[in-house]
Amino acid sequence: MKRYEALAREVAETITKGQLLPGERLPSVRETSRSRGVSPSTVFEAYYLLEARGLIEARPRSGYFVSHGIAQQIEPEASTPVTNERAVEVSELVFHVLGDAKNRTLVPLGSAFPSPTLFPLPKLAVALGRAVRRLDPWRTVEDLSPGSPALRRQIGLRYLAMGCGVDTEELVITNGAMEALSLCLGAVTKPGDLVAVESPTFYGALQALERHNLRAVEIATHPRSGVDVAALAAVLERHAVKACWLMPNFQNPLGSLMPDSSKQALVELLTKHQVPLIEDDVYGELYFGSHKPKPAKAWDRTGLVMHCSSFSKSLAPGYRVGWAAAGRFAKDVARLKLMSSLGAPVPSQEGLSEYLRHGGYDRHLRQLRATLAKQRYVVLRAIAKCFPAGTKVTQPEGGYFVWVELPKTVDALELHRLALSHDISLAPGHLFSADHRYRHHVRVNFGHPDNKRFEAALKTVGTIAKALA
Amino acid sequence: MKRYEALAREVAETITKGQLLPGERLPSVRETSRSRGVSPSTVFEAYYLLEARGLIEARPRSGYFVSHGIAQQIEPEASTPVTNERAVEVSELVFHVLGDAKNRTLVPLGSAFPSPTLFPLPKLAVALGRAVRRLDPWRTVEDLSPGSPALRRQIGLRYLAMGCGVDTEELVITNGAMEALSLCLGAVTKPGDLVAVESPTFYGALQALERHNLRAVEIATHPRSGVDVAALAAVLERHAVKACWLMPNFQNPLGSLMPDSSKQALVELLTKHQVPLIEDDVYGELYFGSHKPKPAKAWDRTGLVMHCSSFSKSLAPGYRVGWAAAGRFAKDVARLKLMSSLGAPVPSQEGLSEYLRHGGYDRHLRQLRATLAKQRYVVLRAIAKCFPAGTKVTQPEGGYFVWVELPKTVDALELHRLALSHDISLAPGHLFSADHRYRHHVRVNFGHPDNKRFEAALKTVGTIAKALA
Repeated sequence: MKRYEALAREVAETITKGQLLPGERLPSVRETSRSRGVSPSTVFEAYYLLEARGLIEARPRSGYFVSHGIAQQIEPEASTPVTNERAVEVSELVFHVLGDAKNRTLVPLGSAFPSPTLFPLPKLAVALGRAVRRLDPWRTVEDLSPGSPALRRQIGLRYLAMGCGVDTEELVITNGAMEALSLCLGAVTKPGDLVAVESPTFYGALQALERHNLRAVEIATHPRSGVDVAALAAVLERHAVKACWLMPNFQNPLGSLMPDSSKQALVELLTKHQVPLIEDDVYGELYFGSHKPKPAKAWDRTGLVMHCSSFSKSLAPGYRVGWAAAGRFAKDVARLKLMSSLGAPVPSQEGLSEYLRHGGYDRHLRQLRATLAKQRYVVLRAIAKCFPAGTKVTQPEGGYFVWVELPKTVDALELHRLALSHDISLAPGHLFSADHRYRHHVRVNFGHPDNKRFEAALKTVGTIAKALA
Repeated sequence: MKRYEALAREVAETITKGQLLPGERLPSVRETSRSRGVSPSTVFEAYYLLEARGLIEARPRSGYFVSHGIAQQIEPEASTPVTNERAVEVSELVFHVLGDAKNRTLVPLGSAFPSPTLFPLPKLAVALGRAVRRLDPWRTVEDLSPGSPALRRQIGLRYLAMGCGVDTEELVITNGAMEALSLCLGAVTKPGDLVAVESPTFYGALQALERHNLRAVEIATHPRSGVDVAALAAVLERHAVKACWLMPNFQNPLGSLMPDSSKQALVELLTKHQVPLIEDDVYGELYFGSHKPKPAKAWDRTGLVMHCSSFSKSLAPGYRVGWAAAGRFAKDVARLKLMSSLGAPVPSQEGLSEYLRHGGYDRHLRQLRATLAKQRYVVLRAIAKCFPAGTKVTQPEGGYFVWVELPKTVDALELHRLALSHDISLAPGHLFSADHRYRHHVRVNFGHPDNKRFEAALKTVGTIAKALA
């Protein structure tokens, strides 16, 4: 960690611990430079980082102040799902919400995607153009499942850099993470099997369970620290769980991040029960803290964890390139891939491989993270200002979703319907559970640097919610 | 049909009917020009076409002669499968044969792919580069399932040109035809259902049935005219068939082509029984005759036929762009696509759309067809020359496979094993049936304009087969 990052972290802790309160003035740059024995530019960089994350605000000629809006917000409690086994039937509504993402006239609070303007598409286009112009025709055959050796090597290097050893041989390139997750699910289950998921959980996981004719059991999940490992342990004792599908890093929709110790405990528990983990880690690169969180896979010693990710949320939306580091199931996953869609697109694979080889990805990621961290602040501030009293909201340390728990009297479906009539999309909580239990919750996307439009939309949604409350 | 095509067809008929025998001299260009009242250049074009198809040969200073090698070959009989319902389990061998396609040191007689050198990859690269450089970032969201509107419009135009009305709304873009077929299967079946397939059938169909936990019933199929509609009718009376997966045009592995009347009868039969048809038409563009064969879908009036194809075999291998014209099931297929892999790759979709808009596809296809027709001749001639007496071989009018029935004493697995030891891949008949019945058959790929290497390989295989016979 660099010096300014360490300093930013310390200051952030004094804020989150309440030693510095919202509205209070921070020590000046000169004071801090002197008291800490660091250069003024280090302090500037640290304050700049904290400002980007929305923790502090600069006021012209007055200095830096702790932001209002975030620290005073209440987080939701951990979920308490009924841990019944149940068949999965995803509602029609999911398709409407997904369809809304395509409608440019709507303010995309309900979208599953970050703004496509956040990605280096022109640079990718150059890399892609160069790669296909000199493409060896035989690559169109040889890049079929398990995928381009060059790209798999690049992905392997990134695992190495984050301290999670992954053998290139266990990497299978897929059409985005969604396919990777679905293939992993197919590799370790058969129709009728039981799969454990978080509560709330990503509706895509529920859809995949439905498609594979699987049943779900939902596990209590904390909005900050993720799935409750003890609750999962209790479920594993009582139910014949065949696989877990979890998102340890920046869970969708909660944004929760499991601490390392929980990830380790999770992998130990699953190893004891020999239950494979399908780890959905598509938001792992979008962290606001000082370092990239490791996947649970980093604690896996026996190949039981299938780690799935993609470039869709971090670099190249629409390229449809994801992967599974599928451990001991890699061969099965590669075969399922071959059987279901032969291979991932060769131009996309070769273009990404070219882009990664020539650098710029980490620089892009730094910008992207800073933008998202700032947008989180914009959205949280608007929610704090405009939503009804009693609203609870998560404060994720990564990704681009907040999960909003409205007062119990607010029906999220009604809110969604009324917001749509104002050209605003919302993702109602119903979508995120097999028993449609999150009825006064919505997931709000903050991945669009479009502040005026978002603030106005959140004000409108807040006004509607207050009327419904 | 152009004048030279009509003439070529007439001459071809005199050959196939035996009025002109192998080795006999054709009337000279001047004679034919006079007798038919057409210009000498028309005759030249017709003879050139027949030469390209391997029916006649030019001998310097002597004129044109009917080719040896094809007319004397015996075709296999129609298949007579046992029409039991059976669970599907595809052998390990399929993956080895697919893996062999990636090994450049092998002569790819067993490959499922034509040579990638046959495709206009540099022109596609230019179109792709242009398309992605000016890509509207929002296309990365808007091109998700059902796919790019521009590409769907281009595909719709091609249906229109072949006289098969397809509504753009029923088109779903997929990651190649394999995914299209698999999604269509998923849309109309549930685990345990029974699906009718040809015998022999494409092993990819058997793999898809296995993945979906479906059972298969195999239908008698003629090497020239395709599936026996009467045999299918009898099966539909006795079995609860939930879907048919068939290849009316240039079936893999037989290369058979159903006559229009059979296609019409097939659709009428299925309409009567309300059994959906999943029509695999990936080789439809690769016809050697004078016009493109229509899909069975052209006779469908009620949206019961799901027509699946792709650009992978005709234009853009590795781009992973296919589609389903899914009739009344289009909405379900689009949703399954969204649930399983969100969308097809945007760069590939936009690149192909750009290429199709600016033309050159039909010119490329004409060259490709002429090359394949010629290669068929090379391979058939080598088989006639080198394989053991009693060998039967199909004479397909399109695609790039011949199906070879060896004497009963030749075990195709043993032949495959021995050929591999000579660096030659083969696709043994076992792969093409749920009950692994085609034990002295092999599928031979002729889609590689690599004559010396192919002729030598076929000579080696013939020598091994003779030793085994």
